[in-house]
Amino acid sequence: MDRHDIEKLRVKLRWIIFGVNTPSGRLFDVALLWAILISVFCVVLESVTWIRSAYGQALRSAEWAFTILFTIEYGLRIWTANRRKVYVTSFFGIVDLVAILPTYVVELVAGSHSLSVVRGVRLIRVFRVLKLVRHLKEAHQLLRALQASRPKIVVFLSAVLTLAVITGTVMYELEGEEAGFTSIPTSVYWAIVTLTTVGYGDIAPRTALGQFVSACLMVLGYAIIAVPTGIVSMEFTRGRVVVAKRLRCARCGHQSTDRRARFCSRCGARMERRSRSRRLAGTPPHLG
Amino acid sequence: MDRHDIEKLRVKLRWIIFGVNTPSGRLFDVALLWAILISVFCVVLESVTWIRSAYGQALRSAEWAFTILFTIEYGLRIWTANRRKVYVTSFFGIVDLVAILPTYVVELVAGSHSLSVVRGVRLIRVFRVLKLVRHLKEAHQLLRALQASRPKIVVFLSAVLTLAVITGTVMYELEGEEAGFTSIPTSVYWAIVTLTTVGYGDIAPRTALGQFVSACLMVLGYAIIAVPTGIVSMEFTRGRVVVAKRLRCARCGHQSTDRRARFCSRCGARMERRSRSRRLAGTPPHLG
Amino acid sequence: MDRHDIEKLRVKLRWIIFGVNTPSGRLFDVALLWAILISVFCVVLESVTWIRSAYGQALRSAEWAFTILFTIEYGLRIWTANRRKVYVTSFFGIVDLVAILPTYVVELVAGSHSLSVVRGVRLIRVFRVLKLVRHLKEAHQLLRALQASRPKIVVFLSAVLTLAVITGTVMYELEGEEAGFTSIPTSVYWAIVTLTTVGYGDIAPRTALGQFVSACLMVLGYAIIAVPTGIVSMEFTRGRVVVAKRLRCARCGHQSTDRRARFCSRCGARMERRSRSRRLAGTPPHLG
Amino acid sequence: MDRHDIEKLRVKLRWIIFGVNTPSGRLFDVALLWAILISVFCVVLESVTWIRSAYGQALRSAEWAFTILFTIEYGLRIWTANRRKVYVTSFFGIVDLVAILPTYVVELVAGSHSLSVVRGVRLIRVFRVLKLVRHLKEAHQLLRALQASRPKIVVFLSAVLTLAVITGTVMYELEGEEAGFTSIPTSVYWAIVTLTTVGYGDIAPRTALGQFVSACLMVLGYAIIAVPTGIVSMEFTRGRVVVAKRLRCARCGHQSTDRRARFCSRCGARMERRSRSRRLAGTPPHLG
Repeated sequence: MDRHDIEKLRVKLRWIIFGVNTPSGRLFDVALLWAILISVFCVVLESVTWIRSAYGQALRSAEWAFTILFTIEYGLRIWTANRRKVYVTSFFGIVDLVAILPTYVVELVAGSHSLSVVRGVRLIRVFRVLKLVRHLKEAHQLLRALQASRPKIVVFLSAVLTLAVITGTVMYELEGEEAGFTSIPTSVYWAIVTLTTVGYGDIAPRTALGQFVSACLMVLGYAIIAVPTGIVSMEFTRGRVVVAKRLRCARCGHQSTDRRARFCSRCGARMERRSRSRRLAGTPPHLG
Repeated sequence: MDRHDIEKLRVKLRWIIFGVNTPSGRLFDVALLWAILISVFCVVLESVTWIRSAYGQALRSAEWAFTILFTIEYGLRIWTANRRKVYVTSFFGIVDLVAILPTYVVELVAGSHSLSVVRGVRLIRVFRVLKLVRHLKEAHQLLRALQASRPKIVVFLSAVLTLAVITGTVMYELEGEEAGFTSIPTSVYWAIVTLTTVGYGDIAPRTALGQFVSACLMVLGYAIIAVPTGIVSMEFTRGRVVVAKRLRCARCGHQSTDRRARFCSRCGARMERRSRSRRLAGTPPHLG
Repeated sequence: MDRHDIEKLRVKLRWIIFGVNTPSGRLFDVALLWAILISVFCVVLESVTWIRSAYGQALRSAEWAFTILFTIEYGLRIWTANRRKVYVTSFFGIVDLVAILPTYVVELVAGSHSLSVVRGVRLIRVFRVLKLVRHLKEAHQLLRALQASRPKIVVFLSAVLTLAVITGTVMYELEGEEAGFTSIPTSVYWAIVTLTTVGYGDIAPRTALGQFVSACLMVLGYAIIAVPTGIVSMEFTRGRVVVAKRLRCARCGHQSTDRRARFCSRCGARMERRSRSRRLAGTPPHLG
Repeated sequence: MDRHDIEKLRVKLRWIIFGVNTPSGRLFDVALLWAILISVFCVVLESVTWIRSAYGQALRSAEWAFTILFTIEYGLRIWTANRRKVYVTSFFGIVDLVAILPTYVVELVAGSHSLSVVRGVRLIRVFRVLKLVRHLKEAHQLLRALQASRPKIVVFLSAVLTLAVITGTVMYELEGEEAGFTSIPTSVYWAIVTLTTVGYGDIAPRTALGQFVSACLMVLGYAIIAVPTGIVSMEFTRGRVVVAKRLRCARCGHQSTDRRARFCSRCGARMERRSRSRRLAGTPPHLG
């Protein structure tokens, strides 16, 4: 197998691993999806005492199987990626690394460290769930809508926090320690619990004045919830019109409003299509 | 009564049972509606100890009356349906069967099985409430709006669950057993209770760091609620324009945008109207 | 004072009592508004033990003062109303009567009946707060928007209740008496508390399966809240355009889209305007 | 330094303190922002017992540093303001004063008054957080949207309160003292807690009838939340179109729809731009 064959294999694998528009690429994606879901489910189950004591050995075996699988996936992604540094330092590159690291680290430190450290490291495996985000294509539209309304969200959160700090302080003064308002940070926590209508009830006002202030805060929180809804609704309506019509260049990320564009207008790369014929014609998209 | 007479009766009954646009059809619907409501109400009341001991006999009689009524309805529906297999295997065909089965099954197994099995079987009768869905004409529009936004809802639910799994694990690490975070599944349950702003308070953070993470989760949950609202608002606005103008063919289900159409443009069947004259003219719609 | 003078007085008083577009009419409205607010506030305060024992006598005097005031108002409304029967049997006519009746009834029955009956009758006075609705002009638009979306709201409530009945029954089976699910009605109450994200926590699932079902219910409830929001948003947007442009006839209630109309196009009555000159010109609107 | 030099310095300082479109003005804003955040954070932390006893001295020093800083800022703002009376009596003028007063007052009264008064005065410092509002440019749009929908919000709040008063009274009658409904004000507090879906659970219905009324209230509250959302969504959509296109005169506040306007069409003042060249050209805007 000479250099040319290896390069051809690399390109083919890139198609499968990074692409989603070929049958084998889609199969790879679905298989990976299930591997992620089951592996996270195993981590979650392991924390239940009776499951750990009954099926501990099986869970540990499954853990190693998934870790090796994800290690191979990570290796292949690095090997086939067009721009390795970009992939390794990207959000998904770090998530892929974090998904496999804990199992190896625990193996290394198990003897010399305390149990709580080991437990902490093992729990990091749960961040593996973030690998799922890669498969949520619609997520990009959501994120873009959120990003577009960032200044409004900052204002909204500032307003919520300002209100929480002031009400928390007032309630700390009014209610005091008996009702659970032991310090301003705790009171602010209570104010956020109330403002967001969660309402645990672990801390609750007892004096008439405290209940009056709380009632005002609740009605305000109830009215304030309309604000982010209005913001997102607006961005959604706007986003739908603009985003839905674009075609994205696989190499440089440039978005074209011309849906029939065959070449990227910025970098000149050929636009990826869903037809199989183009793939066989030997013009692989520059993914990764 | 020869074969032709029976066929005529069947067509007439189909008009009453499946149709909604004739006086007798509407009467049948309203009567059935009340029978369903009262029968479900009886099942619900029977679970209250003092009502069961005081009115047990009356409730059991009512139960048999409703079961026989629904059995007759089920029989007639099968007999008069145009495409019997389609009806029997449809959602409403199964609901109609489930509505009558438990009473008969309990009668058969009562002697030989334990009480808890009998109780479980009897409670299935409550699914009878799903028979109501047939009468909610507007429900179709709602379901279609939901169906149209399915990919966005999947993304939304994935985001909520990913967030719940990660926060649940972090809180399990931070709070530990004393505050009720006994395992990751329990912590994830707590995260969902918090994120959806339900907030029972049976499990609540006690450490300062745990309360800080919770507060962040609440504000996020508060902001996230805007997303499904935005989605549904959008689909509603869109759905209203498209759906409201259509006329549906009773035979093939084809929807016409021409509201004055007298014949279906796909199968040629006469479009059902609300006027009584057309019904007497002898062109029954091919319902069922 | 002859008959003509009395009639003139009646017309003048009607202007003040039912009208809102003259200075004296507006003054009457504001005075009444404060009387209602203070009188309801008194009823609410009277239920607090220490306030009743300290200021009981003052509150009872105020109560009589307000009752006499509202009785005079009720008498004048009947006397000056154009169509007395319509007013007396209207929503506001009944509210005006209910606002004064309890005080007299208590006086009559106080000796011969038990204290709990007297307390119950006295509390009816709180419905006096409904007199406020008359002063909320914007409320009509809100009510019309709600009315327009009634079929959708019925579907929505039916869906919520169907879901609550089914989940309640399932949880009653899963959790049993220990966790508080003592009967299906109680479980349905719990399901509504959860679905609406209120979440008292007096009843909460304890088994893993129960917590899983609850979590599903919460996420569903979280998504369902988007539906009424979408409905109302839609109706609001639609309502704003249509309603804002209309002018209403004070006699027959007919709405004209011609904002400059000087006479009602249905009954020929002169349209009420806000200018003072027209009032002095002696053409009272036919209110009441 | 003669009079002219001082005037020039004053104008320059005004540019830095009130303006936001010059590099030094922006630097001043960011520095002030952090000072506010850290100083509020100190006040909040001081209320935690163990932090106060460990770092009390450091916190008190920081407090004095921030107070002196804010005093200088307040002094400069008064000195450089174009219309001093307007600034001093404006919302931000009062907030700036309240931000510095408590530290001085505590110093004066510390000896002669009780500790609780001192604590109360010290806590007023937390209102310093309102200084942040000045830096939220988007807040104006939010406030304007809220202001535009004020009549609708009044109706909405009146409806919520009317409902809370009536339900509270009914529940007070139904449930009585055992379940926590000790007086009508407490019951109204419970009704608001329920209606806004906060649901602490400190007061919860126990009788079947009480639970039924509560369930109705919850479903209503669930539906009512759609109303403010609809209102704000509407105002937002409307507000976005109108507000986004305007340019505001720094002197008279007049808003121009001509985004390229170089002079205010009402007062003739030069419109402030973000380019540095114009600033050096010596035409300071008449801010403050």
